[in-house]
Amino acid sequence: MTIYFEDLSPGDTATFGAYEVTESEILDFATQYDPQWFHTDPERAETESIYGGLIASGWHTAAMTMRMIVDHHLEDAMALGALGVDDLRWPEPVFPGETLTVETEITETRTSESRPDRGIVKTFSRTVNQSGDTKMEMTSIVLYARRAE
Amino acid sequence: MTIYFEDLSPGDTATFGAYEVTESEILDFATQYDPQWFHTDPERAETESIYGGLIASGWHTAAMTMRMIVDHHLEDAMALGALGVDDLRWPEPVFPGETLTVETEITETRTSESRPDRGIVKTFSRTVNQSGDTKMEMTSIVLYARRAE
Repeated sequence: MTIYFEDLSPGDTATFGAYEVTESEILDFATQYDPQWFHTDPERAETESIYGGLIASGWHTAAMTMRMIVDHHLEDAMALGALGVDDLRWPEPVFPGETLTVETEITETRTSESRPDRGIVKTFSRTVNQSGDTKMEMTSIVLYARRAE
Repeated sequence: MTIYFEDLSPGDTATFGAYEVTESEILDFATQYDPQWFHTDPERAETESIYGGLIASGWHTAAMTMRMIVDHHLEDAMALGALGVDDLRWPEPVFPGETLTVETEITETRTSESRPDRGIVKTFSRTVNQSGDTKMEMTSIVLYARRAE
């Protein structure tokens, strides 16, 4: 079933995904996009980092979260693109060997004033590990198509 | 020179980077992390997308921006990690063939109350293309080490 703006309501929740974080993927992402030593040098991270070991780039955590969101429902959704994200936070770093899951709740929906064929959906999401520790939070602002009348 | 918290002040500005966005990199990133068709299917994007062609994932734009920030100054900085990002916005999508540059301005610095050996630096950044069009804006919140007394 294709999901349009009308199918989404404040209060809707979902929990999904089981993304296994590997050291090699952390290194690959960070080498290309965030080559700070605590993301790219496991030995130095273990001895010098305030986190006690190699951690994923926060942008990598966001990217892994996005992949779970797309796999869960965006493939079938009339999402037209994201306008932005509010209050993106990384309360704890992500380590190799963790498994990430996403919890979402729609917080607001409104039709576009300038484009009545579109609507805007705000969703709060939390990315947690297998122990329930919160690794990332954000509120995304996404444009959806409305059903033709 | 190593950059500590004390070396950063509100009002400091910088402009740097020249990241050439390719279709193949857009496809690689999106296939792995954001496989929505308007990021992964150039033909469908050209005929069906509201943007008129393939566009980069917003998270890819953030990752490319991060790479420019690291190359510009974080390699030599005592940055300890990011706490989060406020007001992340993608006012226009990024297309293949564009060249991205980053403009930054430090907006706030304050020492940590709980950890006096650390400080927090807020930086507004704007990612623009070769024509000066704004593609992304955000305010990052980053933890820095303070100099030992």
